[in-house]
Amino acid sequence: MTLRYALLALIEAGPMTGYELAKWFDQSVAYVWHAQHSQIYTELRRLEAEGMIEAETLPRGEKATKRAYALTPAGCKQLQQWVSQVEAPPALRDPAYVKATYFEYGSYREARAQFRAHRKHYEALRDHYEEHVEQLEQRATALLKRRLAKSPASSHDAIVAYKAHAYRGLIERAKSEIAWAERGLELVDRLAAGQGVDEPVLDPSP
Amino acid sequence: MTLRYALLALIEAGPMTGYELAKWFDQSVAYVWHAQHSQIYTELRRLEAEGMIEAETLPRGEKATKRAYALTPAGCKQLQQWVSQVEAPPALRDPAYVKATYFEYGSYREARAQFRAHRKHYEALRDHYEEHVEQLEQRATALLKRRLAKSPASSHDAIVAYKAHAYRGLIERAKSEIAWAERGLELVDRLAAGQGVDEPVLDPSP
Repeated sequence: MTLRYALLALIEAGPMTGYELAKWFDQSVAYVWHAQHSQIYTELRRLEAEGMIEAETLPRGEKATKRAYALTPAGCKQLQQWVSQVEAPPALRDPAYVKATYFEYGSYREARAQFRAHRKHYEALRDHYEEHVEQLEQRATALLKRRLAKSPASSHDAIVAYKAHAYRGLIERAKSEIAWAERGLELVDRLAAGQGVDEPVLDPSP
Repeated sequence: MTLRYALLALIEAGPMTGYELAKWFDQSVAYVWHAQHSQIYTELRRLEAEGMIEAETLPRGEKATKRAYALTPAGCKQLQQWVSQVEAPPALRDPAYVKATYFEYGSYREARAQFRAHRKHYEALRDHYEEHVEQLEQRATALLKRRLAKSPASSHDAIVAYKAHAYRGLIERAKSEIAWAERGLELVDRLAAGQGVDEPVLDPSP
């Protein structure tokens, strides 16, 4: 259901076509909620059928038209209700941590490869998030500009600060993962000290 | 697919019934991979059908029997192959962060309630993980004792250290979430300074 509310929040920035919505999604919400474009379009049709958004046909160039979606009063209300409800915590499901629990079935070389891949992944995410926070603080993203242009000035600080806070939290998360991978590499070094073998530490047995 | 490998790794500790497996799961893997018992039993039947595990009928008391599952050589191989492959990073999907991005549609009171619930949830998780790491380091969990009893002494340090490392990573994660919620509460205080109102910062509009 989170996707639905994320789409309502995106559209609140101002009427947009499905194509624009998917583009904005990739440049903002996708950092915190992974979704395929096919899921986005499906949810969009559902929101329209339920009367949460409505499409207006606008001209595109001289001959073509495009359908731009805007929130309805019901959609505005649903968005506000979602924010007012305390979010249930997510169930933890991280394959990397499950596997790390059982690295004894692999060799030290394999464990190192896992920790290095983990570090690399979160270093890239950290860089992405840092760039995004900088853009938000400079009020420089196209979506944020659009939001601020249609909102009262009294709300601008909060609009920017909440977004920057969420992404700064993700930066800290990524840093925590990088540190975990670093300590993992140190652990493997300690376990492997003096051992030249490149074999599973423990062969699984029936 | 992670559930499948987690079950293979659990059963590697020694033959166990479906009931025992579900119990061990809740006391170990469930901390890093949330699953319902119905999912566990379904996957167990699939693993048996594929010849990754096999059931042996054992007596239970004087009259009844029970079915205990053990890994087959194919199951051992699949477990080892899983560990040898670098895990693809998980797609990030955290409803709390999505919502936090849009707290301007709520009041300061609502934002505070979210951050407090977030803090409380991760404080409880941190405490659980800390207790679990302590148990692991003392080699005191029943499952770990069973594992160590059937494994060569040369593998014991790695078996314990990898598990403790994974759970210590989760402790750091939980601490990072707690700190994020704390900073969130400070942010709300700053935004709300001097404002007595308890209304949405921004009313969503079409």
